Order: sequence, then structure tokens, then C-alpha cells
Amino acid sequence: MTIKAVVFDAYGTLYDIQSVAAVTDEAFPGYGEIITQIWRIKQLEYTWLRSLMRRYQDFSVITRDSLAYTLRVLGLKHDSGVFERIMEKYLHLDLYPDASSALAAMQDRKLAILSNGSTAMLNTLVANSGLDRVLDATISVDSRKIFKPAPEAYTLIESVLGVPPAEVLFISSNPWDACGAKAFGLNVAWIERVTPEAMALACVESDVVAPLTMFKAIRTQMDELGITPDYRIHALSELPALVATHES
Amino acid sequence: MTIKAVVFDAYGTLYDIQSVAAVTDEAFPGYGEIITQIWRIKQLEYTWLRSLMRRYQDFSVITRDSLAYTLRVLGLKHDSGVFERIMEKYLHLDLYPDASSALAAMQDRKLAILSNGSTAMLNTLVANSGLDRVLDATISVDSRKIFKPAPEAYTLIESVLGVPPAEVLFISSNPWDACGAKAFGLNVAWIERVTPEAMALACVESDVVAPLTMFKAIRTQMDELGITPDYRIHALSELPALVATHES
Repeated sequence: MTIKAVVFDAYGTLYDIQSVAAVTDEAFPGYGEIITQIWRIKQLEYTWLRSLMRRYQDFSVITRDSLAYTLRVLGLKHDSGVFERIMEKYLHLDLYPDASSALAAMQDRKLAILSNGSTAMLNTLVANSGLDRVLDATISVDSRKIFKPAPEAYTLIESVLGVPPAEVLFISSNPWDACGAKAFGLNVAWIERVTPEAMALACVESDVVAPLTMFKAIRTQMDELGITPDYRIHALSELPALVATHES
Repeated sequence: MTIKAVVFDAYGTLYDIQSVAAVTDEAFPGYGEIITQIWRIKQLEYTWLRSLMRRYQDFSVITRDSLAYTLRVLGLKHDSGVFERIMEKYLHLDLYPDASSALAAMQDRKLAILSNGSTAMLNTLVANSGLDRVLDATISVDSRKIFKPAPEAYTLIESVLGVPPAEVLFISSNPWDACGAKAFGLNVAWIERVTPEAMALACVESDVVAPLTMFKAIRTQMDELGITPDYRIHALSELPALVATHES
């Protein structure tokens, strides 16, 4: 197999979305973690629901709407300053610690992001984290007005990079995204960040299953969608060795 | 406004899907509630994801797959007998206590179900609960090979009943379904079964927000999708009075 391009999902794959929790917990002590979890669940649901309803709005609108939902439902009163401070963090998400070195080690391939994020959000995030120096392209689904895992979103890789699906390795830690990419015809490496053993242990250890466990249970484990990604890795740091075994 | 037909969502609207918890808790003591919650979340996610991926499978397959996911992720070992016993309950869900009398009071209109359920699942469920005696039609999205809230699903009401969207009142307790129906052009009454006050109270009362609270937070409150249903009611029993104010 030839890998001419390595393309990454952004949120949850290169960037740690749970890094928002420090800001949400400062704003609402004790609620930091539950806010980030409900926010993320609703953010994803709204991308899928709006795509199906043919009521596309870009990811910045959806990210605001899902945060507004979360604070309303939890009964957390706030002023616009607090709201904007939390939103601002989405433009300064932490990279996973092994992201930069993994990308630097694969400079002999085309490197890109394909994300649900809006163009403005992504460009700011990528610049703030310094990845603009190593990426050949930052691709937003926005031009197709539909979100992943719709096939139209994945077609953008060939449109922008000129590399056909069979020569692309797509990386995502989001099980639904890994399945969507594979169903479309890309080669896919799924990052399993929480092993089944760790997941089962988290369930056994708690008398009452805690929300973080519930979140992990629905967000981190491979889905039953009748599709299996080509590779299962556990960290971005495993990628350079995997890619090196394939022609460029 | 004229209401010629009153059309209901099935799962969560006429039928209480949490009534599965008695069976799941018998099979896996202590896990009954968390199983039903994760199962429901994944069941919905898979309908949306498969619709977007153009990998439709009918609701019976998705319901099995999402249950398999749930038991795997929670690390719950089981034999096929247990699995089938839980699945069987999905064909014998409890009606909400006010469902039958509400339907009986609106017999001067066409009455139907429009559900994501497969034709076989729905027909069995409707017969088991006795609703076949009052319903004019039980409509499955299966013939369109796409799930709600895609507009194609809601077009089936006019196809089957011959009543145009403007003369249909659609009822759902699922916020995303109420929004999808409204976006499509139906008149919509959303059943708010958990009030914002009860929701906020549940959050305040718990030091650690429990999974049931998290589930309520993501499943019962009106979503931020830029759409507002026409009516907000709190129980099926409120419907006959609402419908009676409109011409038939």
C-alpha cells in the first residue's frame, strides 16, 4: 500500500477537547467535567441532526448552541463574559503531547487536517498551536455544508490534496469518524485512547457509574456500525513507525 | 388550523423505553438503569450515523447492535438467552399510562404512528399493547431507508394517510424529533416530561451528577437547533383538549 497523505481529525484526535475542563471548572466550580461532557455530546448530536434535517450551520454556531444548551440544562446562570471565555478556549485547545513530534516525523508525506470545524475556528486553532508550520492543508467540511460521517465530507481530501482515497491514511480517535472514513474508502487508523480493560475497570470500581465513566462508555469505545478500521493504535506516537512501513 | 390527523412518535412518546430497565436489572443486578441509558444513546446515534454514512440497516439490527455495544463496553458477560430476553422486552414495552385514553378521546381524527422502528417490530409492539384497535396506520421509516429527522421520513405521513403536513399534528417527546418534524413543516406538540425546574433540582441535589441525571440532561430538554415546536405539553392526557380546539 502507498500512503501519499496522512490526514487527521482535529477535535479529540490532535487536540484534547477535555482540556476545556480547566476553564469550565474555574467558571463553575465542581461542574467543569460534566459541562465538557454534555457540551461534547450535544455538539456531535447537533452536527448529525442538522446534517440530516438539511439545516446546516457551521461548527462555530453549533459549538455555541451546544454550550448554551449545557449551561441552561444544568441550571448554571452566567453572564456573556463567562460564556465567551469558555468559547475562547476552543481556539486554544491543548495538543496531545505526542502530536507535534509525530507530525514532524512524517514530513515525507502530505499532512493535513479534515475537520468538522469551521474554517475560521480551525485556522486560529492551528496557528495558535503552531501546527501551521507542519501541515500542508487544513480542510474544513464547511464548503460542503454537511458534517462527517457523510461521504461528501471525506471527498474533500482528494479535492484539496489531489490524493485518491486508496493512498490516504486517515487518523481519528472518534469511533464514528473512523468508521465513516473507512466506509467512504479511506485507509483508517483508529486511536483507542481508553482500552476495553480500562473501561471495564472503571465500571467495576464504581458503585454508581459516574458520568465520566458514562461519557467514556459512549465516546471512546469502537462502535457497532458493521465497519472495522484498518489499524488500531493507542497514541499518535505510534504513527510514524506504521507509516514508515508503507511506500510514500 | 385544521387537524385531520394526529401522528405519534412511538419510542419514548407512546411507549416508555425505560420500562426495559426491569428486565436489564434482573439480568444484571445494579446495572439495569445504566444499560437502558447507554443502549438508548447508542441506538439513536447509530440511526443518525448510518443515515449519514448511507449504510442504512433497519431498527431491529440497530437495536441489537447498540445493546451488544452496551454490554461489551460495561464488561457484562452474558449468554444468548439473556440477550434475547432483553431484546424481547422491546416488543412488549409499557404504554405510558395515559396513552390509551388519550387516543380513544381523539377517534374523530386519523390516528397513526410514525416511527424509526422496523415494520415487524412496530406491528408486534402495537398488537401486544392493543393500540392496533385505535390506530389507522403504523408507519415505519423503513421504506425510505433513512431515519428521522431526515425530511424523507416525515413525507411518509402524507404518502400513507393522504393528509398534507399543514393538517397534521405530530407528537413527540424526543426534542430532536419534534424539531425535525417542525423543520419539515408539520404542526408539532412536544411532550416535556422533565421540566427545567426538575432538571435543575436533580443537578443541585447531587454532589456528583449521577448518570441518570446526565441522561435526562441530554435526552429530555429542548434542544438548541434553532427550531421551536408549536405546542409544549407535559403529558399525552393534555392532547384531546388541545386537538378539540381545532377543526377536524
